Amino acid sequence: MTVRGVGGTRAGGGADGSGAGERDGAEGTLVTPSAEFPPLAPEELAALRRIGDQWRAARRDRAPGTDALPVDPSLRRAGGQPEPSRFGRLAPIAMFRVGEPDELVATEPANLPGSRFGRTVTRLRRALLGPPLSSSAVLYERMRKLVALPVLSSDLLSSVAYGPEAMLAVLLLAGSGALELSLPLAAALAVLMVAVGVSYRQTVVAYPHGAGSYVVAGDNFGPRAGLAAAAGLMVDYVLTVAVSVAAGVHAVTSALPGLAGWTVPLGVLTIALLLAGNLRGVRTAGNLFVLPTYAFVVALLALLAVGYARAAGGGFAPVPPPPVPAVEGLGLLLVLRAFSSGAVSMTGIEAVSNAVPVFRPPEWRNARITLGWMVAMLVLLFTGLTGLVHLTGVVPTPEATLLSQLARVTFPTGPWYGLVQAATALILLLAANTAFNGFPRLLFFMARADHAPRRFLHMGDRLAFSDGLVALAVAAAAVLVAFRGHTESLIPLYAVGVFLAFTLSQAGMVVHWRRRRGPGWLRRATVNAVGAVLSGLVLVTAAATKFTEGAWVVVLAVPLLVLLGTAIHRHYALLHRSLALHPPPAGPAPAPPVVPAPPPAAGPAPPEGEELPQQVRHLVVVPVARLNRASLRALAYAASLGQPTLAVHIAPEEPEADRFREQWRIWGDHVRLETIVSPYRAVIGPLAHYLEALHAGRADLVLTVIVPEVVVRSRWHRPLHSRTEQRLRSALRPLPAVVVTSVPVHLSE
Amino acid sequence: MTVRGVGGTRAGGGADGSGAGERDGAEGTLVTPSAEFPPLAPEELAALRRIGDQWRAARRDRAPGTDALPVDPSLRRAGGQPEPSRFGRLAPIAMFRVGEPDELVATEPANLPGSRFGRTVTRLRRALLGPPLSSSAVLYERMRKLVALPVLSSDLLSSVAYGPEAMLAVLLLAGSGALELSLPLAAALAVLMVAVGVSYRQTVVAYPHGAGSYVVAGDNFGPRAGLAAAAGLMVDYVLTVAVSVAAGVHAVTSALPGLAGWTVPLGVLTIALLLAGNLRGVRTAGNLFVLPTYAFVVALLALLAVGYARAAGGGFAPVPPPPVPAVEGLGLLLVLRAFSSGAVSMTGIEAVSNAVPVFRPPEWRNARITLGWMVAMLVLLFTGLTGLVHLTGVVPTPEATLLSQLARVTFPTGPWYGLVQAATALILLLAANTAFNGFPRLLFFMARADHAPRRFLHMGDRLAFSDGLVALAVAAAAVLVAFRGHTESLIPLYAVGVFLAFTLSQAGMVVHWRRRRGPGWLRRATVNAVGAVLSGLVLVTAAATKFTEGAWVVVLAVPLLVLLGTAIHRHYALLHRSLALHPPPAGPAPAPPVVPAPPPAAGPAPPEGEELPQQVRHLVVVPVARLNRASLRALAYAASLGQPTLAVHIAPEEPEADRFREQWRIWGDHVRLETIVSPYRAVIGPLAHYLEALHAGRADLVLTVIVPEVVVRSRWHRPLHSRTEQRLRSALRPLPAVVVTSVPVHLSE
Repeated sequence: MTVRGVGGTRAGGGADGSGAGERDGAEGTLVTPSAEFPPLAPEELAALRRIGDQWRAARRDRAPGTDALPVDPSLRRAGGQPEPSRFGRLAPIAMFRVGEPDELVATEPANLPGSRFGRTVTRLRRALLGPPLSSSAVLYERMRKLVALPVLSSDLLSSVAYGPEAMLAVLLLAGSGALELSLPLAAALAVLMVAVGVSYRQTVVAYPHGAGSYVVAGDNFGPRAGLAAAAGLMVDYVLTVAVSVAAGVHAVTSALPGLAGWTVPLGVLTIALLLAGNLRGVRTAGNLFVLPTYAFVVALLALLAVGYARAAGGGFAPVPPPPVPAVEGLGLLLVLRAFSSGAVSMTGIEAVSNAVPVFRPPEWRNARITLGWMVAMLVLLFTGLTGLVHLTGVVPTPEATLLSQLARVTFPTGPWYGLVQAATALILLLAANTAFNGFPRLLFFMARADHAPRRFLHMGDRLAFSDGLVALAVAAAAVLVAFRGHTESLIPLYAVGVFLAFTLSQAGMVVHWRRRRGPGWLRRATVNAVGAVLSGLVLVTAAATKFTEGAWVVVLAVPLLVLLGTAIHRHYALLHRSLALHPPPAGPAPAPPVVPAPPPAAGPAPPEGEELPQQVRHLVVVPVARLNRASLRALAYAASLGQPTLAVHIAPEEPEADRFREQWRIWGDHVRLETIVSPYRAVIGPLAHYLEALHAGRADLVLTVIVPEVVVRSRWHRPLHSRTEQRLRSALRPLPAVVVTSVPVHLSE
Repeated sequence: MTVRGVGGTRAGGGADGSGAGERDGAEGTLVTPSAEFPPLAPEELAALRRIGDQWRAARRDRAPGTDALPVDPSLRRAGGQPEPSRFGRLAPIAMFRVGEPDELVATEPANLPGSRFGRTVTRLRRALLGPPLSSSAVLYERMRKLVALPVLSSDLLSSVAYGPEAMLAVLLLAGSGALELSLPLAAALAVLMVAVGVSYRQTVVAYPHGAGSYVVAGDNFGPRAGLAAAAGLMVDYVLTVAVSVAAGVHAVTSALPGLAGWTVPLGVLTIALLLAGNLRGVRTAGNLFVLPTYAFVVALLALLAVGYARAAGGGFAPVPPPPVPAVEGLGLLLVLRAFSSGAVSMTGIEAVSNAVPVFRPPEWRNARITLGWMVAMLVLLFTGLTGLVHLTGVVPTPEATLLSQLARVTFPTGPWYGLVQAATALILLLAANTAFNGFPRLLFFMARADHAPRRFLHMGDRLAFSDGLVALAVAAAAVLVAFRGHTESLIPLYAVGVFLAFTLSQAGMVVHWRRRRGPGWLRRATVNAVGAVLSGLVLVTAAATKFTEGAWVVVLAVPLLVLLGTAIHRHYALLHRSLALHPPPAGPAPAPPVVPAPPPAAGPAPPEGEELPQQVRHLVVVPVARLNRASLRALAYAASLGQPTLAVHIAPEEPEADRFREQWRIWGDHVRLETIVSPYRAVIGPLAHYLEALHAGRADLVLTVIVPEVVVRSRWHRPLHSRTEQRLRSALRPLPAVVVTSVPVHLSE
């Protein structure tokens, strides 16, 4: 049975392979909010246990009573009645409820930010996007097939509106006689569609957690190939949004010419609306888009039915097209160009395989069925329209689209023509929505494999990948603005990015089957190989024939994105290496109890290597500019820590230094004071260098710098303060083993 | 003798009066870098002593050895050989030399910032502006009278280039016959000039530390009057720079028409050059401006000499002006308008009294002598030019300036005409420099009285008030850009701001003499009263007759600036009240030694009120997102403090919380852990509210939140990190008694 076969494949998918595939398998079920918290590797757990042993050895001698907390952290026996929060009307204790024995659960009010401004923004956002959704709702935000079909297919199906036209326009360059070739080309494209479709059906099953070209290519060819496929898709997603929105807005402004001057603002507004709809969450967005897609499909099916019925009445005798003189000779290159132009109709076919997890369980089967429907619909509409064009003898003209001409010929009267046009305009607008589904998920997978910033792992409070959605909207709006809304010329550029992804993905599947060598692997590999060769042919043709028309942008952008992804991966790899848990060196493990030790003889442990409390030797440093309540609070805080403490005063002039030392003596000289005259009046630089000098003397010390920070209530008051604390913090950041502590001082009446 | 009299006045000035005057007196010698560190008041010193007693009482029982520092803070017996700094090539220890027994002195390399970018910027700035000047050099940056005269008078003298013309242009509205009035008006203006000049001579002596209208008005009428005078002067300074630069650039573009399209960039560039020159320091800037001013004076004196000699040859018979028809009737209003227009020649007369401290000692006498020269020169040039205009019969025309016509008539041949024009253009450019001297000093005095942001007290590393200079340059450039370089229409607006300051200052001097009632006070007060009435008349006339021409901007800006200064003062007053040292309440002074106390019964001390170490009760909280070396370092740091410690983990989902607790147990459960499930996936909000809830349970606790902060080497890597530490810090800032400690974690290969 298929289910069992798939189950086997799934288990295999988890066990085999390297990199993303293995992670994907290990991560279990698909897209969860916990993806931000990857589990520890087994060797890290072992290291953790050994580090824990050393802590135990060291802390055996700690003072009793330090474990007794002065408050109950579970908030159960909190003294006093709940006081209202300074942030809101609810008492802060009431914002938490007790979950399992060991834990608290934050209720929704606990998420409101502290500042009045932040609260207002949050409330506005919630009014617009809906209340936050709990993580436990993640399973319910799935799509039924009948909803998923329009959401995921609007990009694919909408390209039928311009795909056949693009192919015929190229053929027409060789004269109207060359249009005869449209039927065999359509047949070839149908083969390509089916081949790619079948390949993706196999992909959905082989990668049931939602993968698509990025994971497939990365899994089988290595991360750079995966990144290349992802880059192609990212470019495609951005172009889809920009072009679809521009085309849709143009359809509107053609009907209402008064709006013609507002193309760019209307386009940006449309993108903002799409963004808002998608930020509300997956299901809601799906509901918005069900009707127009079905309306488009119904309108085109009606067009085909009526058209073919009429042609059947005429005995299927084709009307000869009007004679058009040839501009170019009919060579192989032209045929290939026509083929690759027609292939833009396949843009968006990969959406399902990227988005498997948005389906209801069993996800893989529902996704596969939906993909089947989509490809069938695509082949039907594409070949049907091409055939009908052939029968009716219309040719592409600059004045009216092919679809518009077909509709005019087929429905000379009645409301049907208008309906076809309206549905076309609407689905072009909504095609952009497919990208809003695919792009953030692609970034999620990339981020999980450390190829994109981590933030794309985070689900917003509506369980949508907010950052990915915003990134797509910003990029598309930038393209729209940069091209001032005239983005139609970008349509042919799709092909390069998309077919790069298709080619890599299908070639990857060939490798996948060959490695696995399961039953029937040769047949499956052959299917994918055919698809890969055909896709590669389209890719090369598109890149070569359209290079000067703008494809160079894509040819340039893809390697740059690959480099960017590689650089990100390198940085995260450094991060992981730096932060990964290692078993501590066996040598100094059971350290003696802390005594005021002399400086260690030679080779002190690098101070940031320490992970045991008994290895931390403190020196607390308090910079004091003048003696007031703020600095006395910082001094009191420092003294209360019970560690060796040093106060430092930076004076601009000798007499000021003398005066300050006099004040210090009046206070009682409770803390050792060092004054530094800074004759060039700088404070931050000399202080940072002084701390560095102290550190140079005893590299094993941890210097804790305690700075009072005056907190002002309004940001208008900030320019009145010198922000020494912030400047000191950023100056000290590069120093090793310098810990900065800010003691807040709130101004009160 | 005068010196004795002044000495008496000076001492009296310190004793009497309120606010700025008292401060000024107490502060001793003028402008010092130590102004940023005001001394403690006697009652604060007494409070400090009592607070110190309480510390002593409390710390009698502290553990021995905490006073022994693990390093020598004076860096004398620093172990090991000096290692080179990570910031530069010098070892950090070598950046400090031992000054007096008790202190270190930072050498110049210690001022270089830490980052490579910061170092490059600093080096570029030093190449442009010169090496830093030590505070001890402050006395040498004084000006000789012969240098001070051009620097401080270029504004005043340059206005002779347009003052007479402005007066005659108004008279001409009543026909050429009305020009007869120019001689009596010039005489009246000369009286006004002498009156104001004598008044400022008295001011220089009465306020020998450099004061001017702001201090005089504030001292005698209260801070609002002082602020009004300061606002008038500030508006005037900004307009001076913008207008002078625009006029100078126009003179250049008239000569070189090819540059006409570059007026605004050239003007901004000129302002930048003026700024750079002034940032280099006072004396250098003075040297730059000596020659052109003297050239202008010499050129005008030659013009007058030759003109009058020629007129003497003709028996001083005036040439009748060309007949011009009257547009308006010759009424009192018109005469007053002409008078107030001519009065713009007095713009800049207050520069000396504001800048007394830039003179060499004895400052007040050199300043008074310089002021006398300036007024004498002004009266001579103004009346001389007006008389010569009367004799030669030239009238203002739109085509050529009056000065240009006079020069053409006087020097029909030879290079003299060109010299006069060049000197005029140059001095207009340099007039702006007077503002660059006056504006930062005015802001310094305002900042010292808490009427302006503190940063204006700070002397940059060239001993110039960098922030004030930059503020003036930015404001003037903004005006220049906003008016696209056509700022000549703003010339008449000067009068409002300047005469507001004059009137307030001289009326204030009347009060000053009346309060003091020294010998001859009635005579002095009468002189000032005459000046005040005349100035006030000009002020009212200028504001009324030019209100719709743009004076409304000044009439609006002055109250707004007064409100701004008052608001700033209010904020700083709150700051002083909050931070001033008070004697501690007598009650709980000798507190018992710290024991793990039960929650105090009722009314615990507000946690930020504590200034004694024994009153600080700690709870250390470590938020842990995942267990890695960064979080283990934070935990080790927390545990090493020996205070009660609590770890908090925020989980997005229940299973993740379980998994984390499991890891915690593997580690060994060394620190009490509380897990909080945040079902809406937010981290910052729930954590802040949780800390608030803990605080609500025990208001006397100080919560120390310890956060590891991953330090990246390049700012390009920042978007790859979530910056949780920064966001948490800003969310926790408004909470009372929550101390945030960041433990840096540097990424290493």
